Amino acid sequence: MRATVMHSAGDVRIEDLADAKLVDSTDALIHVTRACICGSDLWPYKNMEPTDGGRPMGHEAIGVVEEIGAEVNTVKCGDLVVMPFAFSDGTCLFCEDGLQTECIHGGFFGSSEVGGAQAEALRIPQADGTLYALPAEADEALMPALLTLSDVLGTGHHAAVVAGVEPGKKVAVVGDGAVGLCGVIAAKRLGAEQIVILGRHPERTDLAREFGATDVVSERGEEAVERVRELTDGFGADSVLECVGLDQSTRTAIEIARPGGAVGRVGVPQGEPMPGGQTSFYGNVTIGGGPAPVRAYIDELLPDILDGTIEPGRVFDRTVDLDGVPDGYRAMDEREALKVMVQP
Amino acid sequence: MRATVMHSAGDVRIEDLADAKLVDSTDALIHVTRACICGSDLWPYKNMEPTDGGRPMGHEAIGVVEEIGAEVNTVKCGDLVVMPFAFSDGTCLFCEDGLQTECIHGGFFGSSEVGGAQAEALRIPQADGTLYALPAEADEALMPALLTLSDVLGTGHHAAVVAGVEPGKKVAVVGDGAVGLCGVIAAKRLGAEQIVILGRHPERTDLAREFGATDVVSERGEEAVERVRELTDGFGADSVLECVGLDQSTRTAIEIARPGGAVGRVGVPQGEPMPGGQTSFYGNVTIGGGPAPVRAYIDELLPDILDGTIEPGRVFDRTVDLDGVPDGYRAMDEREALKVMVQP
Repeated sequence: MRATVMHSAGDVRIEDLADAKLVDSTDALIHVTRACICGSDLWPYKNMEPTDGGRPMGHEAIGVVEEIGAEVNTVKCGDLVVMPFAFSDGTCLFCEDGLQTECIHGGFFGSSEVGGAQAEALRIPQADGTLYALPAEADEALMPALLTLSDVLGTGHHAAVVAGVEPGKKVAVVGDGAVGLCGVIAAKRLGAEQIVILGRHPERTDLAREFGATDVVSERGEEAVERVRELTDGFGADSVLECVGLDQSTRTAIEIARPGGAVGRVGVPQGEPMPGGQTSFYGNVTIGGGPAPVRAYIDELLPDILDGTIEPGRVFDRTVDLDGVPDGYRAMDEREALKVMVQP
Repeated sequence: MRATVMHSAGDVRIEDLADAKLVDSTDALIHVTRACICGSDLWPYKNMEPTDGGRPMGHEAIGVVEEIGAEVNTVKCGDLVVMPFAFSDGTCLFCEDGLQTECIHGGFFGSSEVGGAQAEALRIPQADGTLYALPAEADEALMPALLTLSDVLGTGHHAAVVAGVEPGKKVAVVGDGAVGLCGVIAAKRLGAEQIVILGRHPERTDLAREFGATDVVSERGEEAVERVRELTDGFGADSVLECVGLDQSTRTAIEIARPGGAVGRVGVPQGEPMPGGQTSFYGNVTIGGGPAPVRAYIDELLPDILDGTIEPGRVFDRTVDLDGVPDGYRAMDEREALKVMVQP
């Protein structure tokens, strides 16, 4: 089968790999109908050291179940399913707490062990806990929006939940990538009174406004902090969604939180020490977040997609086939595309 | 009046300063009947650069109101009051949220501007919001316990609240100083099922056991992390109280939190970047805390002191008069004393 493999920074290839097949009795096999390229895929695209054999890429997909193991009960062949970026058994103590990304039998797609979703097919470990069968009304026009359930929409929602967004709150979203834009959608859904997006790509911040952002801050660093404070009665935002992961963006996120506020981090942190250790302390600012348990959020978010209340599919501004994937990486890396959908 | 002034690391003197007096109409003046030396006073005792005039020390006190400004309404002359380590107006949006340490008209005792509590008398800004008048049953034997309401008990309680301690939770407390021991008291009060204290001073960890700790871990670093995980079903603690503030202790606190757990920081952080930025992210661990709004907690904690349910006064193991304060600093710094009470 054909699949995307990254060999080193900037070196993404479409290769013929051995066909995906069932390994464990809890596995399912899906034929991938939609996948996409993630902002987090750009980190290895920038920095990956060369490896033998490379790394299969992709962790977001919609697909059709083609085969199931003997112990799989909740999905059946022919089901159209969303595949969250992490697999999870659905039954462990963390899954029961709605924290599937910490599942004790879980893991992440897009690795040599499990394979990647930017491919014709993929083995899904722990299929019962992982896959979410879509209802019949999930028609073709909704596919881009439904695909965001596998990562970016649930991730933006996680940031908002962790940051305590609720009706009447003042919210700031750091980053105008697909996750930041989905953070705006999530904040709006949860009733935020004000949503300030920090970003400097006008076509993205324009989309953010359509999603519900009330203010755009294009400054960075100290100037951004000043500007957000001006916009929020001088004290900063109640809830800050950190959707980038760089030191600078994390520092800004902490500094624009008002005293007693909260930061929800979903940008994959590029540094180990976290900036703002004293700033957050003296402000009694809470910092939470991590890999989003998007599986837990599908029940809540899916109805709003099906009835058109939210349109997260608008974050996709380009569609490619598998052969177009390497150029899709380039286009996202060069900010020529916001988010690239893949139709294998 | 006589007061404690620190001039540089290790140089603490009792000096004759100008008498404390009312400045603003919202001030009160108290005659200090009890004060104490705080673990946080040991940071400047170790590191303070020499300054002209030095820094008045002390931010914990019980006293008798001697004079009040024209706008003071909630306390009157002769009242026996607890003075929290921060002053606050009690009416701003942060005070109304119970976050008096972020009061927009607030600040901290133990500075050249406001003066310190290790003294015969002290001016109390924002007296209405700051001071808490004790009831008549607050008799002499309870003074050590009541004095902890001004900082260490409320601070340990804040760590527990921020870390989400509730009935049935597994809790770890990093640090066996007075705040850590009060953290144990707080965790027990809030219904923790298991309380692991990390500390290596047997006389302190013995007291922690009497306060409700179920396990003691004397290892540090990676060994401590392993040991706590062993004690908590392999996953770590639901709630971790960081009561030290060093990089090493903060890293340990984050690493012993179970996935989805929470760390409440009340140890004053000695470094600006916070360790564990990626560890906390991948574990979806929430980190909160800061200067404790102890004023907000007195209503809840006082009854348990008055009826003897908790005995936080046991953290004091030495009492000195003002002349004994410099030696009190030495004794605490050398770990000869756990916490020193001052009777000016």
